[in-house]
Parts: sequence; C-alpha cells; structure tokens
Amino acid sequence: MKTEVLDAGSIAGYDEEVDVVVIGLGCAGASVALGAVEAGAETLVVERAGGGGGTSAMSGGVIYLGGGTALQKACGFEDTAEEMLKYLQASIGAGRDDAKLEVYCDGTVEHFDWLVAQGIPYKETFYYGQSGEPPTDDGLVWSGSENVHPFRDIARPAPRGHVAAMPGVAGPKVMSALCKAVEASGARTAFNTRCSALYRERDGAISGVRLERFGENRHVRARGGVAITTGGFILNDEMLLAYRPEARKCSLRVAAEGDDGSGIRLGMAAGAGTRHLDKVSVSLPVTQPWDLKAGLLVNAQGQRFINEDAYYGRLGDYALLRHDGRCWLIVDDGFYVEPEYGYDLAAVGETPAELGREIGLPEGALESTIEVFNRHAERGEDPLFGKREPYLKPLLTPPFGAVDCTTENARYAVFTLGGLASDIDGHILDPEGRIIPGLYGAGRSTSGLAVGGYSSGLSLGDGTFFGRRAGRAAARR
Amino acid sequence: MKTEVLDAGSIAGYDEEVDVVVIGLGCAGASVALGAVEAGAETLVVERAGGGGGTSAMSGGVIYLGGGTALQKACGFEDTAEEMLKYLQASIGAGRDDAKLEVYCDGTVEHFDWLVAQGIPYKETFYYGQSGEPPTDDGLVWSGSENVHPFRDIARPAPRGHVAAMPGVAGPKVMSALCKAVEASGARTAFNTRCSALYRERDGAISGVRLERFGENRHVRARGGVAITTGGFILNDEMLLAYRPEARKCSLRVAAEGDDGSGIRLGMAAGAGTRHLDKVSVSLPVTQPWDLKAGLLVNAQGQRFINEDAYYGRLGDYALLRHDGRCWLIVDDGFYVEPEYGYDLAAVGETPAELGREIGLPEGALESTIEVFNRHAERGEDPLFGKREPYLKPLLTPPFGAVDCTTENARYAVFTLGGLASDIDGHILDPEGRIIPGLYGAGRSTSGLAVGGYSSGLSLGDGTFFGRRAGRAAARR
Repeated sequence: MKTEVLDAGSIAGYDEEVDVVVIGLGCAGASVALGAVEAGAETLVVERAGGGGGTSAMSGGVIYLGGGTALQKACGFEDTAEEMLKYLQASIGAGRDDAKLEVYCDGTVEHFDWLVAQGIPYKETFYYGQSGEPPTDDGLVWSGSENVHPFRDIARPAPRGHVAAMPGVAGPKVMSALCKAVEASGARTAFNTRCSALYRERDGAISGVRLERFGENRHVRARGGVAITTGGFILNDEMLLAYRPEARKCSLRVAAEGDDGSGIRLGMAAGAGTRHLDKVSVSLPVTQPWDLKAGLLVNAQGQRFINEDAYYGRLGDYALLRHDGRCWLIVDDGFYVEPEYGYDLAAVGETPAELGREIGLPEGALESTIEVFNRHAERGEDPLFGKREPYLKPLLTPPFGAVDCTTENARYAVFTLGGLASDIDGHILDPEGRIIPGLYGAGRSTSGLAVGGYSSGLSLGDGTFFGRRAGRAAARR
Repeated sequence: MKTEVLDAGSIAGYDEEVDVVVIGLGCAGASVALGAVEAGAETLVVERAGGGGGTSAMSGGVIYLGGGTALQKACGFEDTAEEMLKYLQASIGAGRDDAKLEVYCDGTVEHFDWLVAQGIPYKETFYYGQSGEPPTDDGLVWSGSENVHPFRDIARPAPRGHVAAMPGVAGPKVMSALCKAVEASGARTAFNTRCSALYRERDGAISGVRLERFGENRHVRARGGVAITTGGFILNDEMLLAYRPEARKCSLRVAAEGDDGSGIRLGMAAGAGTRHLDKVSVSLPVTQPWDLKAGLLVNAQGQRFINEDAYYGRLGDYALLRHDGRCWLIVDDGFYVEPEYGYDLAAVGETPAELGREIGLPEGALESTIEVFNRHAERGEDPLFGKREPYLKPLLTPPFGAVDCTTENARYAVFTLGGLASDIDGHILDPEGRIIPGLYGAGRSTSGLAVGGYSSGLSLGDGTFFGRRAGRAAARR
C-alpha cells in the first residue's frame, strides 16, 4: 500500500479526536501507548494485523538490559551503567547515537522493573552455553560479544540478555504481557486498521491520520501527536535494493507481515531525516551449541576472518557483508557436535587438503590456514583474531568437516536496524535535526541503539524504553 | 546553513519568475541549464561560490563513456552499448539502477559528441599504464576494472575513460568549457547565492525558491521546476556519521566547499526518497604506476583480499570497508618503483618473516600468504583472486617492502555516491516512487549510475547526461 502526506486543509474535518495516535502494536507501539496513558493522554492504537504482537512476538524475546538489574543481581552478576555503556559504544562503533545510549544505560534498571510490572515473568536463573534464545526458561543469558576479544578488555563483561520465562522462544510471552497491559490501561485499540496518510498543517506540523479499515476511511485528529511504530522494512525488496541489497540473500527474514517499511516511508514523505538505512542485524547461529566455537570460520579463499567465539550476530555481519555470505565452519572430530539450527556438513575429509578440495577452496589455502592457527593455538594464542579458551585448540583429529555457511544453504537471520531520525524523546527529526511537530516514533521504524555490532535484545530494549518516552512526550504536547 | 521547505502561501508574492531554477553550477547544474535552454526555457542558475565549477572542477575530469564513441574509434578500440552495459551491471552490482544504466549506455556515443560540441577538447590518443588521470594530455584511458578478473570474462573490455586534453588533472578544463557554454546559452547565472528554502504549494508541488545573497533574501518562482545539483555530502561530518562513518577516516575528501549535502537535505525535507546514502567511492591509488600491481595487498592479519590488478577504486572500497583501512602493499626489489602519489614504505625486510615482524603482523602470517601466492604464481595462476599477467609473478627478490596503506598514513580519496531518488528524466521521487511535481535533480545530489564498484568518470558522466535530461524535462513542464 502506498502512503502519503496530505494537506490538512484538504479534508472537510476530522471524524474523531484523540490525544495520541499510535500506528502499530509491537513492543514499541505498546510502550508508546502505555507511556501516553500513564501521562494522562487519550490514546488510540491502530494495528494493520488482526491482533497485537508484530515482529516483537516473532522474536526470541530477549531484552538487552543491565547496569545491575534485579535479575542480574539475583543471578549473581555485577554490572554498572558505565560498563554497559562502554561495551555498547565499542561494539556498536562509529555512527552510534551516544545520547540514546547514555540515557538507556542510565535507565535500564528502572526499565526492567517496569517491564516486570507490566506482567512479563522472569525466572531468576542464568543459562550458560547458548546465546540469545536458551532452550530452557532461564532468565539471563549472554546475548552479545561482551566476553570475547576485543570487548572483554574494554568493559567488564556481564550477561545482559533478559529472557521472559518461556522455554525456546520468549517473544510471544513478552508481547502477550504488553498487549494485556495496553488493554488494561484504557488505551483504545483498532485492529485490521492501517494508517494510509498523515495530515499536515501549513506550518508543517502533523495533526492527524487517515485510517483505513476494510476499505472505509476515517480521519482522526491527534491533538498531541502521531507515533510511528510500524517496524522495519526487511520484507520490502525494493527498499532493500535501495539500502542494503545483500540482505535479500538471507534465508530467514525476521519479520511479521507488517515489516514493509510503510511507516518509514510515511515519515520520509513528511520530510523526516533518516539514519543508517543500510544497517542490518545478520545472525549466523552456527556456533550453537557453543562447543562449535572451536571451529574455524573460513571464506572462499580459505581464510579466517573473525574470532569464532564472537556472538553470532557478529559472525553473520562479517560473513554476509565482508565475505559475501560464502563461508564454512571447519571442524574436527574431536569437538564436533551437531549444530542446533540445521546447518549441514558440506563435506568431510581425512586431511585439511582433502576437505579443501571437496568444498572447492584454492589448493593449499585451507592447509595453510589450519597450520598457522594450530601453531599459535598450541601456545594458547590467536594473534590473528584473539579467540580464547576454552574454544582455542588445534584442529588435529580427523576426519575434518566443513559446516556449510553459504547463504544458499544455511540459515542467516536478518532484520533492518536503520530508520527515521529521532531524539531521546521520540520526536521525529527533519534532515536538519529539527523536530517535526506532532510526529513521534520508536522501535525499528526509527534508528535506535544498535546501528551495527548487534547484541540480541537491543531492539526490544530500545523499542520499549524509547517507546515509553515517546508516549510521554506526545501526551505532554 | 540550515535549509527548509515552506508553505508557498506564507510569502506575499514572488519577486521574480523564470521557467527553471538550477541550484549549483558543477557539471550537473551546467548540463541542466544547457538542456533547459535548448528546450526553450528561461533559466536561472544560482551558485553559492563566487564562480562555477564545483567539485567537478576539482576532479580528474574523466568522463566514463563508451559503446563506440568517436574517441574510442580514433584510438582503435571497439566497443558496444551492450558490452558497456554488461560491464557496468556486473561491476556496480546489486542495488544498481538498470533503467538509468540502459538509457546511459544507449546514449553515450551521442553524449560524447554533445560534450565536444560544448567545447571540451579531446586528443585522439590512448594512454597505457596509469588509470584515470594520465600525466599526459592523452584522451583515452582505462578507468575501471574492465580488463581484470572477473569482469574481463563477463564483458569484452574496452577503455572508457574520456579525458579532456590537459596534462594531469582535466577537471578544470571540462568545467571551464561547460561554464562558458552556459554563459553563451543565454541562461542567467547568480553567484555567491544560496538557496535556503523551497516553497511548496498545498498540493505538494515545488513552485519556487528563497535565494540568499550577502544576507538579502529574494523569492523566485520557477514555473517549470527547481533542479537540485549541489553535489554530495562528503564534507558534512554529521551526515557521514548517519550514513557512512568510515568515510571520515579518509585523508582526501574529493570536494569543493559546497559538498555539505545541503541540496540532499533540502530534497529530503520536501519529502523525497533517498537511495544508497551509505555508498561512497574510495580510491586507493597505490598501484600507480602499474608495475606496483605486482605487489600483494594484505590486511592486518597478513591476508590478501583482492586481485591487486583491479582498479584503484575497487582496491579502496575493499581496503576501507572490508578491512578497516589497515593494509599494506607488499613489494619485492624485483619490480618496486616509487609510488606516484606519495605512499611511503612502512618497513623493509630481508625476508617475509622480518618484514611481517616490522609491520606488526602475526607471526607466520605473511610468510604463509607469500608462500601460497608464490606457489601458484609460478604456474601462472592466482586461484584465490584471479590476478593475471603481466602482474602475476612470485615475490622472491629481497629486500621486501611494505608500502603503507593504512588510513592514518596513506592517501584514500573519497566522495559520496548516494542521494535523492530520481528517475531517468531527473524527476525527484517520493518514498513511494511518485514524482514530486516541480522538483528535479542530477549529479551527486542524486543517486546515479554508480552505487558501488566505482569506475572513474561515472559521476561526470551521469551528472552531465542526466543533467541534460532533467533540464529538458523541467523546461517541458
């Protein structure tokens, strides 16, 4: 569906008035609504699907929180806002939004308590050995590269993946709690309802929306503001071609039906600036269970390119964007276990040379890579990439195997990170950094905390955290 | 300076009316003006600098043309629009604009004749051994990767860099000719004049501009349209942080003072879509003269990552964006010559091991890279990256050297490629792909032919080619 921005003077009048209109009911939309209602605003949430949840409900349900949350303390981990900030700044890297990172790290202890107060249950136990989405109902996991080179030397590591108590995939648990909280809050919800247009006053302010439901249009004035929380654009091939073509090669696009970028396009048409539309989170969860981190990830030239004990979100980023999604995890019979997510062995060989031939690597390349790695590993070192114990050991035990990590055959999970430019209160900004009056946003329609170096849980984290702030700001207006 | 888009109803009236207003007088602005005047339009060109030229005048002056231009024929090269299209599609890769590529390849023979008719002189001689900017006044050079792996097997190679007859840097020659042609055309020019605002009608059409000259404002109505030709944003650090932070590490930003993205921001504020704002052209001209292509470009792990005989625009892209701008060109005493652009030797060693230690590579890494390369090169092969004769030879002759290609110490030349979304007639498009009435653009304010895999001359090429088309379209409206 094409969206548009129209002159508010072009309609006879609004059918209805509220304080805040929220477009989309994922974790960001729910949090905007809750924030707005808490601040006393009459709030309407519209969602194009038949019910709430969005991509948040399809996610692993991890929320990246720290600084010493109640859950971290219960599990015996120390953490501070400062260490969390240092890690996030280093792992996200250039282009990060320091203002957002600072307010987030300062506020996550309170934010965790708020999430619990909304009804999200957490079990006070820690799970080791798998990232992001534990197969149990344990509450705390490592969901980033905190504990590996180079980050462990930059900031004191602590696990910060907070997972709602539900074995396997906790996203539905998070969203059913938040949707119930929205219902209980007194915010109105309208499902099967799209926002097809924004109305703009002559001074540039956004004052209302055109809503479409089963072919009927309705015009709603938003006295405080309109918040765009419609998610990213990983399902929109045309936008991917314009911003990040490589993402189309990934076998798994992490998305609900709505992630077609409609809200981002709507905001751009209203004159919003954008940030980091080329950034994506790409996961290559081939090192689950973690024993597989002892493998060597090599590219089409048989070269290693990363410390394999890094978080799978970092592996995927390097594999897809720097090595064209053509790589293999080289394993030996000493540590090999079956990968969790259905990755296949592309080939097996009695020697590195035989294995290299089988997968079509240049002659001598894999032998040379393994030889250099083994020589250093025997001394407990990885001067190329800084991999560490317990996953640093020479590959010596035949047969050797190559786990297929090419995009054609393997699971790469991707979603978009960039979006509309926004400030720490969820105001949408124009290309000069000025607030567009009446326009708000949160979640993956906006450019948030993670614009590279993804750690799991940052999207639900900033969607809920900055969603609340956006709701309060729109209510105050 | 911050720009804005204002309601046309907010001003008392326009001070002046013309058919077409062109903002910026680089190669794109000049060509819009010439195209508009040819189509009979009363045209005003405003330029914020004291005279015309812009970044085009700071460039090497190469124009990428082919398909059998008069110059190619005079130099004895065969070429067709089909082969040119195949090369450009393959080298630019995913995200390219096929509609623009097709009309460009079909039209470049005529376009070359038009450029000559504007007064740009070309000497009918071919120069071999250096790319892009020959030290002579020869007219034709290789300015891309046409003749190297993998492109030589995809499309029949032909040199397509058309260089105005001026030894060294031909950009000023191109622009002095085009500026003279603009003067002679009857278009009016206003220098030291900025466009600080666009005026928008209630139906969304752009109808005029606010011009600022020495602190005085003037409002000009544009009956046909306003064309944004203000260049890219390589001088705007804030925009680089939002779209391509790595570019800030490059020592040479190829830009005139005006490349601060003002026109792109103006278009975005008017609700334009954008494409590929993360894309940059990064040149690492370390293999000039070409004898240096026999070297091995290695990263911080001592690994090769590209066929070193590729065009320097391709080398820079890989070095900066895939290897963090940390690399060295390994040479031996058998072929070493002094690099053209002041690259320094970071270290010299009697053996690869000694050289590797000197530049801080992991022990054994460089030895292993050279050993694998030499073994294949002795058989005339480079199965890793496809480098070819005459630059494929084993490195055997001590001493060995490492030419410093780290961003801290070496010349990386960068400019932005992405910009406003436009069609083949220079209409600026909204995020849904609809024309914004009255708004046009060309050159590096728009996303053009090259959105990756840069070949030199594509920017002057599409700026002039699609500039002419935009001028005609605005004149017709």
